[in-house]
Amino acid sequence: MQWAKVLGVVVGAAAVLALGIILGHSAIPKGADPVVLQDLDLEILNSVIGQLEASRIQENLRELSREPHLASTPQDEALVQLLLQRWRDPESGLDAAEASTYEVLLSFPSQEQPNRVVVVNSPGTVLFSCRRTEENLTGEQGGPDVVPPYAAYAPPGTPQGHLVYANRGSEEDFKELRTQGIELNGTIALTRYGGVGRGAKAVNAASYGVAGLLVYTDPADINDGQSLPNETFPYSWKLPPSGVERGSYFAYFGDPLTPYLPATHSSFRLDPASAPGFPPIPSQPIGFEDAKVLLCNLKGNLAPVTWQGALGCDYRLGPGFQADGDFQADSQVNMSVYNRLELRNSSNVLGIIRGAVEPDRYVLYGNHRDSWVHGAVDPSSGTAVLLELSRVLGTLLKKGTWRPRRSIVLASWGAEEFGLIGSTEFTEEFFSKLQERTVAYINVDISVFANATLRVHGTPPVQSVIFSSTKQIPAPGLGGLTIYGNWIRHLNRSSSVYGVVPRLTPLGAGSDYAPFLHFLGISSIDIAYTYDTSKTSARIYPTYHTAFDTFDYVQKFVDPGFGCHRAVGQTAGSVLLRLSDSLFLPLNVSDYSETLRSFLQAAQQDLRALLEQHNIDLGPLVSAVEKFEEAAAALNQRMLALKEGSPDPLQVRMFNDQLMLLERAFLNPRAFPEERYYSHVLWAPRTGGVATFPGLANACSRANNTAPGSAAWAEVQQQLSIVVTALEGAAATLRPVADL
Amino acid sequence: MQWAKVLGVVVGAAAVLALGIILGHSAIPKGADPVVLQDLDLEILNSVIGQLEASRIQENLRELSREPHLASTPQDEALVQLLLQRWRDPESGLDAAEASTYEVLLSFPSQEQPNRVVVVNSPGTVLFSCRRTEENLTGEQGGPDVVPPYAAYAPPGTPQGHLVYANRGSEEDFKELRTQGIELNGTIALTRYGGVGRGAKAVNAASYGVAGLLVYTDPADINDGQSLPNETFPYSWKLPPSGVERGSYFAYFGDPLTPYLPATHSSFRLDPASAPGFPPIPSQPIGFEDAKVLLCNLKGNLAPVTWQGALGCDYRLGPGFQADGDFQADSQVNMSVYNRLELRNSSNVLGIIRGAVEPDRYVLYGNHRDSWVHGAVDPSSGTAVLLELSRVLGTLLKKGTWRPRRSIVLASWGAEEFGLIGSTEFTEEFFSKLQERTVAYINVDISVFANATLRVHGTPPVQSVIFSSTKQIPAPGLGGLTIYGNWIRHLNRSSSVYGVVPRLTPLGAGSDYAPFLHFLGISSIDIAYTYDTSKTSARIYPTYHTAFDTFDYVQKFVDPGFGCHRAVGQTAGSVLLRLSDSLFLPLNVSDYSETLRSFLQAAQQDLRALLEQHNIDLGPLVSAVEKFEEAAAALNQRMLALKEGSPDPLQVRMFNDQLMLLERAFLNPRAFPEERYYSHVLWAPRTGGVATFPGLANACSRANNTAPGSAAWAEVQQQLSIVVTALEGAAATLRPVADL
Repeated sequence: MQWAKVLGVVVGAAAVLALGIILGHSAIPKGADPVVLQDLDLEILNSVIGQLEASRIQENLRELSREPHLASTPQDEALVQLLLQRWRDPESGLDAAEASTYEVLLSFPSQEQPNRVVVVNSPGTVLFSCRRTEENLTGEQGGPDVVPPYAAYAPPGTPQGHLVYANRGSEEDFKELRTQGIELNGTIALTRYGGVGRGAKAVNAASYGVAGLLVYTDPADINDGQSLPNETFPYSWKLPPSGVERGSYFAYFGDPLTPYLPATHSSFRLDPASAPGFPPIPSQPIGFEDAKVLLCNLKGNLAPVTWQGALGCDYRLGPGFQADGDFQADSQVNMSVYNRLELRNSSNVLGIIRGAVEPDRYVLYGNHRDSWVHGAVDPSSGTAVLLELSRVLGTLLKKGTWRPRRSIVLASWGAEEFGLIGSTEFTEEFFSKLQERTVAYINVDISVFANATLRVHGTPPVQSVIFSSTKQIPAPGLGGLTIYGNWIRHLNRSSSVYGVVPRLTPLGAGSDYAPFLHFLGISSIDIAYTYDTSKTSARIYPTYHTAFDTFDYVQKFVDPGFGCHRAVGQTAGSVLLRLSDSLFLPLNVSDYSETLRSFLQAAQQDLRALLEQHNIDLGPLVSAVEKFEEAAAALNQRMLALKEGSPDPLQVRMFNDQLMLLERAFLNPRAFPEERYYSHVLWAPRTGGVATFPGLANACSRANNTAPGSAAWAEVQQQLSIVVTALEGAAATLRPVADL
Repeated sequence: MQWAKVLGVVVGAAAVLALGIILGHSAIPKGADPVVLQDLDLEILNSVIGQLEASRIQENLRELSREPHLASTPQDEALVQLLLQRWRDPESGLDAAEASTYEVLLSFPSQEQPNRVVVVNSPGTVLFSCRRTEENLTGEQGGPDVVPPYAAYAPPGTPQGHLVYANRGSEEDFKELRTQGIELNGTIALTRYGGVGRGAKAVNAASYGVAGLLVYTDPADINDGQSLPNETFPYSWKLPPSGVERGSYFAYFGDPLTPYLPATHSSFRLDPASAPGFPPIPSQPIGFEDAKVLLCNLKGNLAPVTWQGALGCDYRLGPGFQADGDFQADSQVNMSVYNRLELRNSSNVLGIIRGAVEPDRYVLYGNHRDSWVHGAVDPSSGTAVLLELSRVLGTLLKKGTWRPRRSIVLASWGAEEFGLIGSTEFTEEFFSKLQERTVAYINVDISVFANATLRVHGTPPVQSVIFSSTKQIPAPGLGGLTIYGNWIRHLNRSSSVYGVVPRLTPLGAGSDYAPFLHFLGISSIDIAYTYDTSKTSARIYPTYHTAFDTFDYVQKFVDPGFGCHRAVGQTAGSVLLRLSDSLFLPLNVSDYSETLRSFLQAAQQDLRALLEQHNIDLGPLVSAVEKFEEAAAALNQRMLALKEGSPDPLQVRMFNDQLMLLERAFLNPRAFPEERYYSHVLWAPRTGGVATFPGLANACSRANNTAPGSAAWAEVQQQLSIVVTALEGAAATLRPVADL
């Protein structure tokens, strides 16, 4: 062989060898399998967003809201089967779906003895009766499955007494009545919805000796003042005169008899006769049509200006009726409440799409299924979106086009209307598993309150992912404007970090995210479309919890064309996919820094002087906030560096664990011993007006008028230390994992 | 070219290409970097075990125990510096080491006013004084740094009264005295150590009206009856007549003023005047030399047979002294206790070896540093081993020979003797980080009580790793017998799964593992060498907490040659390396099944009849145990399959997370509201004799004599549900992670 030939063969062989090495190398990329380092696929994301169909959401809603489906009724169970069938569909279903059932304490009016509110004169003759059911305006308000208006968990009883008007039934409202010299003992108090929670009205009333509570919705609060039949549904989206808001009057959430335990058949149960949290006196909601008759006949002092409403008369305080009105002056109101507590089976439906790479990381997405009546808006507008999203994802899954990096768990919760019961029992049953593995919880309950703008409640780490998501989705009916662009026009704030941004508002406990956030410490988000508050002052959409919340109502007035439903589905779907598929979790922990700084500033502005009088120093809190800020900023820097390098799958996992678990570091199950479930030291219920750390704010309120050195002032110091410990502990979880 | 040649070239090229592919493939093995799938290196393990030197442990001990080093004293701080210097050594140190300091409430006797116990006659003449210090037998019992015997946290006071003998000071003992008609009010009670905790003696005594408590160590309990000077140290390892066991009489653990909060300078503190857990009456420990004078002069009824001891006289109950004894009959005992509470700085020292692959997984190994006096056995025998192990590991590390897969954190805790304070504050400060990331906690406090056999306390998941470790290490001085082989001879049990195995006993709260296990739910192990209980009935090694616990004592009597110290170091080192370096965590979760089954059987045998009378069904508990057993067994099967396949690093990580976090699933911070820190539903303190679930057992004890339907019986049902929920929740964490 010639040298040249030899050289040629050697060079050729070397080249082939090199090619082989390259092929071998690229055949087994870093991390065992190419999928382990795969990031969010924007094509898949866009495809999901694009495939969501408004018309299918519309058809889902039609089906979901055809029948009233009060928790635990056969119609509710029929929807369980519908969900199972959809989620098990061979073409568009999930990997698995199951129903799980708890035995929970619900409250229902008696069918045999309807609740009754009447005016009687002193011989006992009935002069006036409130409606027992809403007027059957569209043919859907009648029938045996429409539960009559009632106050769930209000005890039975037949109080009778002079009527007083107590505005919204707050502590201050009753104090005002007493100040005005009105004897409340044994009265029936008429209150309007809003201001304070339903159950709180009854608790406040009872503490002033009130014997029975009536609650109505004032047209000023829901209809922008309008109240005539031809101004209201079915002629507009406004509440008809006979419409009554049902609701739970229970003080806590979760099954009332099994706090902190799943309500299995064998579980320990509190004695219903002594279980805490039920309203102490018989209570009943009525429509404004009836409220007008009662209220406009009251005698006594004129109610304060802020207590006046839109019923077309001067609101007086009572007690009792005017002599020259519709009733004799000695007439009283007689209430007969026959509600019954019943242990009932209520089901959650759970579906899963198993994660390809990290199946032990769960992105949860849920909504409740039960409604008070047809519940087209509440909650079926959310479930209609959930089903359309699951169809699109399920189809990609079944086709083999896509499988998420992490597991996606979809949930349809039972008995939310009675107090977030299904979701709470789920968190109690799977406490450890969920707390260890859940990335975030996405809630879409009512998906469309109204068609003006997106509104989002959430914890700070989800701000970035909702911003990214909404920047890529067009707002329905607004030309090229994105959802983000529309949102920022309606609801914005000035951020010290980002400038003007859409306003992400804190989560309370109004839907099923509550146990996930407050009990488990899981980052949560609640997404919906809502009204333009410059155009209406309605507390909520007008037919909320009434028999008028029907498919036609949605179709005609709330979201004709279902474009907003689709937009919410696109938004929630984008958030879901970003959380499930991004290599690095799109949770920006440093967005907590801004919250903490604002809480700190509020404490410094509004509490420091008071605290200093009691030798309580905010210095440690300042230092803790600074440590958090530094740790969070440094973590973001490390993430950038890691992204620029070529991280291995374990490095990514370790980093993501820090992101995922940050929210857990704010939990302290011993922080609020008087609360139930609330353990998150930043988001527990806060009394008083200072937007700061709730434990500190509440302790200051309690201590405010006590002597220096009181136990209440010691508690302020203790709450300060609880917050400081939580912040320092949280900062420690964000530092490099092998720092001492 | 000929076909053959062409064929040859093609075949050759293909072969070269294939070689290249293979080379390329093997150059980048699965998981980015070969180290990510590396398992425990047995050569390294054997090298570590082999390099541990008895003589270096001996020299460590000499240095550590040269001076008394009571918590927070300058000598204790000097040892902090010693540890930092060792752990920062450039040749044999760790990656980093830091001291961290807490401001904690300790208790000391007054230097100006020494505590005093005397016998006085009615005019007040002192007839007899107990020693204020131990006899200076070896030149080490004198000097200003030897803290005189005292009962830490006992309040100051000068009670005087007739003496009674109250055996061990249990509730039953005082009840017996009352049954015998003895008026306890205003008396001084002499009790002996053992049976119940120190603080409990004072609590029980006070509840019967006793005004002051004396506690001594009976030679029957510690010296196998021997009590003469020439039978005891320095002539043997036995307790000299003047020896006094010091100790904490605080009822809880952790800093007394900052429960659940780290004791930082600014932390909220309880008011010491009202903080719970301190002994209610002045208390003082004395030696048996003095106890003999008091006890052998008592009048009154002969004490029960089981109350008799080895002081060489009949023990009588009192009250008061015999007329024909050393004292006048009306003589009383006068105690003067001048203990003071002081806020002191106490330091932990922490060192880290950063994990190469999973730095966010911590294997913790710790011991306390503080002693009552020289503390050669307690705790320096453990610290001497810790330092030798850190030297060997540090040397491998600095040479670049080895770095663990996971991070190893070494800890030297402060103020353990006062109530596990340093370790508890650490768990409070880093609660979230530790709970999320800690694989296990290894405690080696006293490493060698005596030289007969290994003894191990631990939670079931560590059984397998301690067995593997001890099967490979020779028992010192026993020819070819392994530590395991020797252990099983001394302490064994019959396992339904494994047959006869060494007995791993449950962890109480006797050392720093307590906050890790009970508060954080971290699998823990406590390792030591101990006596042959067939040869001695001593409660503990005789000079425990006295000034006679010195280096010479260890060298001459406890472990001449330090072979047992080395054996403990080898065992603990092996456990540490297996936990830090094994690809799959060597935590066998299915070993919990045997524990649960035995708890269940005990409940069925001893409680079922009683429970059935109150309509409480154990069926749900049976079912929960079965579910756990099934889930654990199935998990072990999946692990075998995974090991046989070629798992990627994320699969291993996910699996290990299930193993690591199992113990956490047994935590319920609301399970025992009356306890402090105890949250582990399987290992909380248990009263009564039934070896079953503690919450159930304790609730049954409380309910036993109450009426059917009482609140106490409701609590039994509640505790049953708490256990069932924990077991079902734990089982859920063991199932395949993407199961619904």
